[in-house]
Amino acid sequence: MDIKTKTIEEITVVELAGDIDAKTAPIVTEKVLPLAEPGSKIIMDISNVPYMSSAGLRMLLTLYRQATAKDGKLVLVGLSEEIEDTMSVTGFLDFFKTSETVESGLKILQE
Amino acid sequence: MDIKTKTIEEITVVELAGDIDAKTAPIVTEKVLPLAEPGSKIIMDISNVPYMSSAGLRMLLTLYRQATAKDGKLVLVGLSEEIEDTMSVTGFLDFFKTSETVESGLKILQE
Repeated sequence: MDIKTKTIEEITVVELAGDIDAKTAPIVTEKVLPLAEPGSKIIMDISNVPYMSSAGLRMLLTLYRQATAKDGKLVLVGLSEEIEDTMSVTGFLDFFKTSETVESGLKILQE
Repeated sequence: MDIKTKTIEEITVVELAGDIDAKTAPIVTEKVLPLAEPGSKIIMDISNVPYMSSAGLRMLLTLYRQATAKDGKLVLVGLSEEIEDTMSVTGFLDFFKTSETVESGLKILQE
């Protein structure tokens, strides 16, 4: 699991690479959750996440709740077809703002 | 994909074995959807389904909607931990009645 963070005009961009499963989800959570500070704007770029287990979905939900509770905003970028389908059919996708690229995600958060 | 159906006291029990993915979900849908007749009671036993992709989840939702639209009832039996977790964290599980065994599923439908 590779986790990189960078800041673009007050927006934190988190790039994840690798599967997010029961083993790696806690590592991601530990690293990413503290980023959800009051008023934070976060992009989670999962373009290089081929597979996400239920643990990964739970991590996203935890992050979403934390960000929202602190008046932050979160955009998911680069969902694979399978991940997006799973989130869509279950209704889980409704929680999140999504975007195809980091560039378009930045625009959403700059509005 | 192995699909067996039997009838126990007017309740249709469908036993599925194998992964339910984009390839096998249409086969299951074609076989199972016609069972959702008016007032039908259906148990979907997925004890032997190790993996379900988004296509499998969509199949369950289609079946649930069809059954409910026709005043039928549906119980899912034997969900693996990963499938149950995915359905739980996304809120998808709320649609369904579930049970650990066919026997307890029969009791739910006989009430």
